Amino acid sequence: MVNVAILGFGVVGSGAAEVLTDNRRVIEKNLGETVAVKRILDLRDFPDSPFGPLVTHDFNDILNDPDITIVAEMMGGSHPAYDFTKACLEAGKSVVTSNKEVVANFGAELLELAAKNGARYLFEASVGGGIPIIRPMVNDLASNEILSVNGILNGTTNYILTKMLDEGADYADVLKDAQQKGYAERNPAADVEGLDAARKIVILAALSFGKLLNPNQIYCEGITKITAEDAETAKAFGCSVKLIGHTELMDGKVLAMVSPRMVPCSNPLAGVADVFNGILVDANMLGECMFYGKGAGKLPTASAVVADIIDIVAHRGKTERAPKFAVATESDYADMSAYATKRCFSFENTDGAAAKIKAVFGDVETVTVGNRIAFISEAMTEAQAEQKAAEVGLNLISRIRML
Amino acid sequence: MVNVAILGFGVVGSGAAEVLTDNRRVIEKNLGETVAVKRILDLRDFPDSPFGPLVTHDFNDILNDPDITIVAEMMGGSHPAYDFTKACLEAGKSVVTSNKEVVANFGAELLELAAKNGARYLFEASVGGGIPIIRPMVNDLASNEILSVNGILNGTTNYILTKMLDEGADYADVLKDAQQKGYAERNPAADVEGLDAARKIVILAALSFGKLLNPNQIYCEGITKITAEDAETAKAFGCSVKLIGHTELMDGKVLAMVSPRMVPCSNPLAGVADVFNGILVDANMLGECMFYGKGAGKLPTASAVVADIIDIVAHRGKTERAPKFAVATESDYADMSAYATKRCFSFENTDGAAAKIKAVFGDVETVTVGNRIAFISEAMTEAQAEQKAAEVGLNLISRIRML
Repeated sequence: MVNVAILGFGVVGSGAAEVLTDNRRVIEKNLGETVAVKRILDLRDFPDSPFGPLVTHDFNDILNDPDITIVAEMMGGSHPAYDFTKACLEAGKSVVTSNKEVVANFGAELLELAAKNGARYLFEASVGGGIPIIRPMVNDLASNEILSVNGILNGTTNYILTKMLDEGADYADVLKDAQQKGYAERNPAADVEGLDAARKIVILAALSFGKLLNPNQIYCEGITKITAEDAETAKAFGCSVKLIGHTELMDGKVLAMVSPRMVPCSNPLAGVADVFNGILVDANMLGECMFYGKGAGKLPTASAVVADIIDIVAHRGKTERAPKFAVATESDYADMSAYATKRCFSFENTDGAAAKIKAVFGDVETVTVGNRIAFISEAMTEAQAEQKAAEVGLNLISRIRML
Repeated sequence: MVNVAILGFGVVGSGAAEVLTDNRRVIEKNLGETVAVKRILDLRDFPDSPFGPLVTHDFNDILNDPDITIVAEMMGGSHPAYDFTKACLEAGKSVVTSNKEVVANFGAELLELAAKNGARYLFEASVGGGIPIIRPMVNDLASNEILSVNGILNGTTNYILTKMLDEGADYADVLKDAQQKGYAERNPAADVEGLDAARKIVILAALSFGKLLNPNQIYCEGITKITAEDAETAKAFGCSVKLIGHTELMDGKVLAMVSPRMVPCSNPLAGVADVFNGILVDANMLGECMFYGKGAGKLPTASAVVADIIDIVAHRGKTERAPKFAVATESDYADMSAYATKRCFSFENTDGAAAKIKAVFGDVETVTVGNRIAFISEAMTEAQAEQKAAEVGLNLISRIRML
C-alpha cells in the first residue's frame, strides 16, 4: 500500500480524495497496488467528511511521516505551497500538484530539487485541468520538435466569450451570470485579465522550448475590453473570439503571450466552447494535434492529480525522465514588438470609410456591423498596426489579433 | 547509442527513418541518448535512398544481431509481421508497431509474450496515426474508469464524408477524387467498408475494458451506402455524418461497433474534418476529452512509432506497466441487438407522409430534403427500428444512427 498526503482540502484536494476512494478498484487494477490517503493538511476541520479524521493542521505531521512518500499539493497560491513542496522534495518525497502558480513561478527550481533528491515533481493538473497534456508533451511528442502551442487555457473566460458570441450578450452581463453559476470567482481578475492563462502558457512554453518565462513579464491582455459588437464582427468573418495563450520560438528566443484572438471556424480551437479547454500543439513531424476536455472542475482536475500519483507509484525506485527547463534570462525573451499577426480592425463607419481604409490597407474585404466597419489586415507588428490605424483618419473602435 | 531495426521500408517505415534522422538532435536532447537505424528489412532494394546500404532481405540479420534491441515493425498485414514480431519478442527484443491488423488480431498474445521475455510491445501508431492516444489512455486515464470511446478513426472515409457534406457531392465521385489525391487506395474496401476502423476500435476497447474482440466479429457498417441526400439531411438537422467507431460496456460485456452516425454540431467530433482523426473518450472522473490530429500519413504516424522507441529506451532495463488484455470469448461480446440509439429515418415523401410517421413515431420534427421526409427518432434497438419503419407504410430510404 502506498500512502499519500494531501495539502489543501479545497475543491481539487477533496476531489483527489474522492477519486482515490471512488475509483480505488480501477486504480488497483491498473496499478497492481493500493493508494490510500493517510493525511490531509488544511487550516480547517472537516467533521462531516469521511476524511475528517485524517486532517492535521501541522505540516510536520506529513513531512516527518516516513510512510508518506507522495504528497499532493492542491493549496493554490505561492506560499506556503512552494515552501511545503520544497521541504517535501528535500526530504525525498515526490510531489504532484495542480498549482499552476507554483509551477509557473518555481517549476525550474523544483524540478531540479526533485532530481537531486531522487524524487519527482509532476504537474499534469496545472494546465488544462483534467486534460492529458503535460505527460503527452513530455512523452508522446518527444520525437518531435515543438513549433508552437496555441491554447484555450481558461474555462471562465471561454464560457464568457462563448456566451457573448452565442447570445450577443455584453461582457458585464455574462460575467455576472458566470459568477452566479460558480464559473467565475467573485474577484475574477486572474481569469479575465489573463494571468491564469499566462501561467499556463508559460508552463507549456517551458516544456516546448526549455525556458521558464516569468508569467508577469509576458504580454498579457485579458477579455475585459471585448464587446458584444466585437463578437458580432468576428461572426461576420466566420470566426470565434477566444482568449489564446500562444507560444513559439522567434529567432531562437521564446515568445509567450496571452490575448484575445479571432479564430477562424476551420481551426479546431474555434469549436472549443463553454468551460472546455483546448490545446493545439504544432510539432514538426506530427503537425497539429489538439487535446480537448474539461480544463477545470473538481473531479476532472483531481483525476489528473491522481494520474500523476499513479505515475510515481508505477515508477517507484526508478529514475524517470523528467522535463528540464531553466529560468529564463532577459535574453531568452523574444522581442514582442517584432511579432506580426493579421488583425481585425474595426473603425467607426462614417462617410467614405471604406475608401479611407483601402487607401491605407489595400483592397481588404470590409463588413459593417452596427456603427462599425471592419476588415482583416495582412500580418503586421503592433507598431505597424498602430501607425496604419492612425493613417486611416477614422475613429478606431477595436483591433483584435487573428489566430 | 541504441540500435534499432526497421521491418518494412514503405511509407511509415521510411518515415520513421526520416524522423530518427531529421529530428536526431531533439531526440538526443529529450532522451540523452542517440538512436540510430542499424538495419532495414524489405524485399526491395533502395539504391537511391541514403538508407539503402542498411537494407537486408534476411530477417535473421536482424533477429540474430545482439546490437539490435528494438525493432520497429511497419510492414502491414498479419503475416509475416506477426511471425517476425513473435520471434523478436521471444529473443527479448522490444517491438513497436504501427500495424493495427497485428495488434487487433494478436495483441493480447504479443503483450503477454513481451512481458514473459522482459521486452515491451508498444503500438501507439496503430490507432490515430500520430495522435497520442494509446499512451494517454494507459497512463493519464489510469485514474479513471473508461465509460465509452467514440472515434473518427479512418482519415480516408472522413475525407470522403467531409467532401460529401461540404460540396453535396456523391460518394462515387468523391471516392475517385480521394483516390487521385492518394487519400484512398485503389482497392478502398478496408477503409470504406469500415474494417480499418473496426481494428482500431477493437484496440481501444481492449485498452478500455480488458477484452480484445475479433475485429471481424463486431458489427461493422461502412460508408458505401451514404448518399449526398443523407449528407444534406444531416445538415438539415445541424449534424455531420461521420464513420464512428464506438465502444462501451453493456451489462458488463463489451460492445464495439463501426457505423456511420449523424453527429450533432455541439459534439466536438462533428468538427473533425478531412483526413483528420478525433477520439472522444468519456471517463468517469474526467468526463469527455478528445484527442485530435493527423490519423495517418508518413511523418505523423512515424513520429508516434519513434515516440514508442523513445519510451523503450527511456525505460530500458526497467519493468514498465503495460496494458493487459485477454482474448475475448463468446461471452465477452455484448448483445448488439439490445443496443439502442436514436436514428435519423428518411422516408419517401408521398402524400400524408408526415401524418403516417407521427402515427408511429409520435410527434417528431420532420424536415423535407428533395423527395424525402426525415426525422430523428427516440432511442431504439435495431429490431424496433425495423419494425417501426415497416409500420409506417412508406418507402424507407435510409436509417442512420445518431451519436
